[in-house]
Amino acid sequence: MHNKEKTCWNCPAIDLAGKVDFRACGQSVEEFRKKLDLEDSFQIMAECKRRPELGLYDPMSITFEECPEWQKCPHGYLLKNMRVLILGIDGYLGWTLALWMGSLGLEVSGVDNYNRRDWVKERGAHTIVPISRMSERLRAAQEVLDININFREIDILNEHDRLREFIDEVKPEAIVHYGECPSAPYSMIDAEHAMYVQKNNVLGTLGVLFLMRDLVPETSMIKLGTMGEYGTPLTGRPLFEGMFPADAVLKWDNREWSLGGELIPRDPPSFYHISKVQDTYNIVEACKYWWLRSYDVMQGVIYGVHTDQVSADPRLRTRLDIDEWFGTVVNRFVAQAIIGIPLTLHGTGEQIRGFIALEDAMQCMTRLIASPPEPGQYAVVNQMSGFSSLREIAKNVAKIGKEEFNLPVKIQRVENPRVESERHPFEPIYEN
Amino acid sequence: MHNKEKTCWNCPAIDLAGKVDFRACGQSVEEFRKKLDLEDSFQIMAECKRRPELGLYDPMSITFEECPEWQKCPHGYLLKNMRVLILGIDGYLGWTLALWMGSLGLEVSGVDNYNRRDWVKERGAHTIVPISRMSERLRAAQEVLDININFREIDILNEHDRLREFIDEVKPEAIVHYGECPSAPYSMIDAEHAMYVQKNNVLGTLGVLFLMRDLVPETSMIKLGTMGEYGTPLTGRPLFEGMFPADAVLKWDNREWSLGGELIPRDPPSFYHISKVQDTYNIVEACKYWWLRSYDVMQGVIYGVHTDQVSADPRLRTRLDIDEWFGTVVNRFVAQAIIGIPLTLHGTGEQIRGFIALEDAMQCMTRLIASPPEPGQYAVVNQMSGFSSLREIAKNVAKIGKEEFNLPVKIQRVENPRVESERHPFEPIYEN
Repeated sequence: MHNKEKTCWNCPAIDLAGKVDFRACGQSVEEFRKKLDLEDSFQIMAECKRRPELGLYDPMSITFEECPEWQKCPHGYLLKNMRVLILGIDGYLGWTLALWMGSLGLEVSGVDNYNRRDWVKERGAHTIVPISRMSERLRAAQEVLDININFREIDILNEHDRLREFIDEVKPEAIVHYGECPSAPYSMIDAEHAMYVQKNNVLGTLGVLFLMRDLVPETSMIKLGTMGEYGTPLTGRPLFEGMFPADAVLKWDNREWSLGGELIPRDPPSFYHISKVQDTYNIVEACKYWWLRSYDVMQGVIYGVHTDQVSADPRLRTRLDIDEWFGTVVNRFVAQAIIGIPLTLHGTGEQIRGFIALEDAMQCMTRLIASPPEPGQYAVVNQMSGFSSLREIAKNVAKIGKEEFNLPVKIQRVENPRVESERHPFEPIYEN
Repeated sequence: MHNKEKTCWNCPAIDLAGKVDFRACGQSVEEFRKKLDLEDSFQIMAECKRRPELGLYDPMSITFEECPEWQKCPHGYLLKNMRVLILGIDGYLGWTLALWMGSLGLEVSGVDNYNRRDWVKERGAHTIVPISRMSERLRAAQEVLDININFREIDILNEHDRLREFIDEVKPEAIVHYGECPSAPYSMIDAEHAMYVQKNNVLGTLGVLFLMRDLVPETSMIKLGTMGEYGTPLTGRPLFEGMFPADAVLKWDNREWSLGGELIPRDPPSFYHISKVQDTYNIVEACKYWWLRSYDVMQGVIYGVHTDQVSADPRLRTRLDIDEWFGTVVNRFVAQAIIGIPLTLHGTGEQIRGFIALEDAMQCMTRLIASPPEPGQYAVVNQMSGFSSLREIAKNVAKIGKEEFNLPVKIQRVENPRVESERHPFEPIYEN
């Protein structure tokens, strides 16, 4: 079990309020830990919100394996009835994760303002897998899977006070943040769209961070970033997970310095991707100032539309977009193959990306929720199961289309709208 | 003369529209230049907006020294009657620069929405140098210094269309962007202020970039950043000017890569400082996508209140804030010394910062305006004349106060509200 050694120190049920003065302990998680290791007299005391009978105790003395509130499941130990709040629960990933989490017995709540449905409609597109309205989805989840989802329609940017009420009511133990506008081309339409995407994403998330500080400071935010934050440096240097590793060294002027822990340079290729970088800085700083905890998930391109839950009933399906605004590349290729039009490769197709299947992404999210960061910890996970050039992906889709489904698939090159080097090395690190 | 070798390629009077297809030339300024150097048949042709009689010609064939539109002055060659637009012209730096530029014979225009006056009032503070209303300032500039400033009251974020009209009317040849909210503590008050500062700064600037693309793509934006973007890494690695230099090398896993040209890691200490980092990414990308040009000025702490122009008449004075929200450290110390209260050092006072006098900052800005970047070039200037710990600054102010003005100056330590390491190395690079 990957998380059996974690302790109450990582658990969102810990109550540190007023018992640990982080500011007095020094600047960083690292310094704090060093102090803990070196100074015998330095001790942390906390209480447990779920087990008040413990009184004041050392939160590093009880592991998940030992605590009766954490229970074994195929994904590791899970906090019994853990309260998970999903921001953007109506989307491709949000809805899928809600059912996935619910089927694991967690208490799922969620908010959405249906913006995704509106953006897609605005561009004259629509999900090619028909989806139900939220009320029907919720009813079906209860009828078919016996999952009760506590949903509220809230705009996280413009209804800050309603979100405050909901978070205060739910007291989530993990917040999964899918509530941003996820389209690079949408952000590049014009000034209005660029400003809208950055406003919606960056300021919405900043507001959530303040609410977490005020209401649920021990809860972790698991936030969707993108591998696109990094760009694809032509030197071929590795795409580390957010920060330089401890043994990365800067050499200049015959001198050397460790770069360990510093954010790796970003080179986002659109105003949408920039919004994710802008988020990164706000989240890093919220962890530093307020000892919030966060996993930033730099996700590769997701594909597929199947999990056991969303496939259990037509009313439970999740959306699938294949248009040029909100569609992603594998889903587009497959759709193009099926309807018999050529697969469109932008430019040479030598661009390399990381990929992950929908079901694998759900498993990753589960493990992250089950293994929360420490207070003050900001950690990055590059989430992919492998990488490949777009041309290879197209070829594979064409091959499978021909051989297994007897489809006459063609590949067509079109001009690349992005300012990017199409030929580039790619060495992503994805150990976390 | 520092800029005599620059050519029409750098000049904002160049008209490249439709004559150079940057997209077809490759991705980057570097690749473009390489192509220019290596391929004989590869040639750029342009026209001059100021000298249409030149027809189509090679813009690298005429230097500033050779062009009659560029005239010698003590700050290098200056473009005759150059049209300079100052965003935030009512502020400490904006107003000072307007008069400075006007006295050099440039055509100065400016916009402001008087937000700075409102923010300071909101915090219960006020400028300790009394300043006039804009109408009086403009009249005095004309009467006393014979400078005509073309001013319009515009909110650059919320009046995008009015700003469009003004830029289209003025057709600025350089845009100096001082139009952001410059206070770290103001951004840390609460969620509302944090979101306001990032919205005002980042989205306002993003809107300006789109207008430049549409209306004045050869004009450079000289934008105020802050040395605070970098933070103060405890390893003591140098604070390069925005990007790693070409000879900076990453060593990891027994391999090496050049980091040259990649943005150096940022570690901004407040939501205000983050807004500057967020701007950086938008500006970098606008230069990359649209071949805009920009100098990002990472300014040290400015001090002082004198230039010949602002001192020429009481109505021409620029503001001086010494409160805890908008005051900066040297100005505060001096004011505290004069009114006889202790100089307040936050924490140990061992924090090191870069500093620059108001008049020196104006000279730097003049040189930057006189030496525009190339199309597509994003360059960073760390602007300071030296650096020092806050404690040394306080000691110096106390010493001068005692010895030269017979003031009984005391220094008092108060708690440091920032999450920062007070003891840190500091090696800023400021070659540009």
